[in-house]
Amino acid sequence: MTDRPPLSARVRAGDPRAIARAMSLIEDDHPGAPALIRELFPHTGRAYVMGVTGPPGAGKSTLVDKLVAELRKEGETVGVIAVDPTSPFTGGSILGDRLRMQAHIADPGVFIRSMATRGHLGGLAPTTSDLAVVLDAAGKSVVVVETVGVGQDEVDIVRTADVSIVVLVPGTGDDVQALKAGIMEIADIYVVNKADRDGADRMVTSIESNLALQAFGDGQWRPPIVRTEATTGKGVAELLATVRAFRAHTEAQRTERLAARQEYRLRDLLARRFLAHVEQHVLAPGEFEALVGRIARREVDPYTAAAGILDRALGPRGGTR
Amino acid sequence: MTDRPPLSARVRAGDPRAIARAMSLIEDDHPGAPALIRELFPHTGRAYVMGVTGPPGAGKSTLVDKLVAELRKEGETVGVIAVDPTSPFTGGSILGDRLRMQAHIADPGVFIRSMATRGHLGGLAPTTSDLAVVLDAAGKSVVVVETVGVGQDEVDIVRTADVSIVVLVPGTGDDVQALKAGIMEIADIYVVNKADRDGADRMVTSIESNLALQAFGDGQWRPPIVRTEATTGKGVAELLATVRAFRAHTEAQRTERLAARQEYRLRDLLARRFLAHVEQHVLAPGEFEALVGRIARREVDPYTAAAGILDRALGPRGGTR
Repeated sequence: MTDRPPLSARVRAGDPRAIARAMSLIEDDHPGAPALIRELFPHTGRAYVMGVTGPPGAGKSTLVDKLVAELRKEGETVGVIAVDPTSPFTGGSILGDRLRMQAHIADPGVFIRSMATRGHLGGLAPTTSDLAVVLDAAGKSVVVVETVGVGQDEVDIVRTADVSIVVLVPGTGDDVQALKAGIMEIADIYVVNKADRDGADRMVTSIESNLALQAFGDGQWRPPIVRTEATTGKGVAELLATVRAFRAHTEAQRTERLAARQEYRLRDLLARRFLAHVEQHVLAPGEFEALVGRIARREVDPYTAAAGILDRALGPRGGTR
Repeated sequence: MTDRPPLSARVRAGDPRAIARAMSLIEDDHPGAPALIRELFPHTGRAYVMGVTGPPGAGKSTLVDKLVAELRKEGETVGVIAVDPTSPFTGGSILGDRLRMQAHIADPGVFIRSMATRGHLGGLAPTTSDLAVVLDAAGKSVVVVETVGVGQDEVDIVRTADVSIVVLVPGTGDDVQALKAGIMEIADIYVVNKADRDGADRMVTSIESNLALQAFGDGQWRPPIVRTEATTGKGVAELLATVRAFRAHTEAQRTERLAARQEYRLRDLLARRFLAHVEQHVLAPGEFEALVGRIARREVDPYTAAAGILDRALGPRGGTR
């Protein structure tokens, strides 16, 4: 229609509308999304990716807002991806975006995007890392990925983020603490938020006991615990200083870590695309589920089932191995 | 040479030499292994699989030996797979097998096998679940899989086992506790072994604090903590009673859990065999590593790299999606 520059160029120029459009294409799994990523990817690798995770009600959004303000004071430009597994439709998150954007509405150095997670049917990709690619290519020097820590998402964050921050909050009982213990494994830094509350000391002691169960080698990073009060901003500057310390501590390994991450990602992409290909082009609808049922009933073994599928997908040469 | 029955028939008859031979074929990734699994698989699904994991020095071997004796008293037949990630060659484990077998040497109702883990190069399969298939087909009513809790193995155990038992031990410092906190997520039952030691109470309190961070719904199993002294056998009967309680609690979901496990296994098998096919028959030696390096240097994006490989593996139709 017009001869305006292509979307990727506008993203790279930092145009907020272009960033939003690019993210929508990726979230919707639009046919043009891989080509877009392809154009943006060479211009990435500069943003420092911070993963922030924790149970619902831990005050993550408020903390991230304060973190963003602090990062801006230090001259960083910031992109935020807030993964929200509770709202089943993206529509439910838009109001949240608008509300949260108000604090930074006049600031072109900040871009905030909420993303509703979908069911991971048939090994579908979580698109968080591709959204981070967009913000990275758009020139944001820091990308914050915020998730509720309830499952596979934490693992994906650790694959994507340069630092993983786990936010906990002193609670009154199990119902408040929807946190799985597995999240502990991925923390580079712990935050005890709402540190003015009763039980904050006990929470710190709990984390300390947990850390005491782990072995840390010489020169290995031992996750520190930072107390914050996100509503007042107390402790947020200290948290950023801790992130900087972690960044300095891990800088030497960054190239290796990026390569290992890309290796994981390439294998993962190949495996998922192959499984999608199998379900879409090789098997009839419902055939996969039927086959799993037959395996569970011991009517066929997994090797025969897999070999049959590989034969059909790759030709006899593929299945025999 | 002779007309003795085929290996699978001898395994099913419970012949210890045949069981050992079948396991060696699987561990060595012998070309005949898939056919063997295929013959045994229809005769599986009856054994109850207990995963026992914990840090080195927790006394797992002694505990498992006492568990085996207790299970035998109750009339069960038992197979044990002891995964040993510290010995790089299978040869290193054989002496261990012999030593451990002495307690049960005259008992045809017990079969113990140590397995050295190999590096999981290129997504190679851990064969633990296939070894369990052999013991299951051989008629063992209980299969115990014992691993040191240091990495991916715990996750594999939880995919394979009907119950996951995490063994901890009161220690004097971090060096003794090579346990990762992530192991906490998979425990159905905790054991504090060497419960007569100083620090046992503190260890129980530590686990309790950890459990307090997790949410348990109505009717959901909350992992109990059992104290044992494996050397004397104290607490072992109580541990088995707890396993029985867990088994009763989860019996109703067993069919679903078996189906979900088989679905995971089929996807995993397909993905791994496809990746192996790609590295062996599609790419030249070293090409995969070179490609990862190019992605990390931003010379090519993961989508283009994956599409190129899929095109070569599946024909143009596979790569376009």
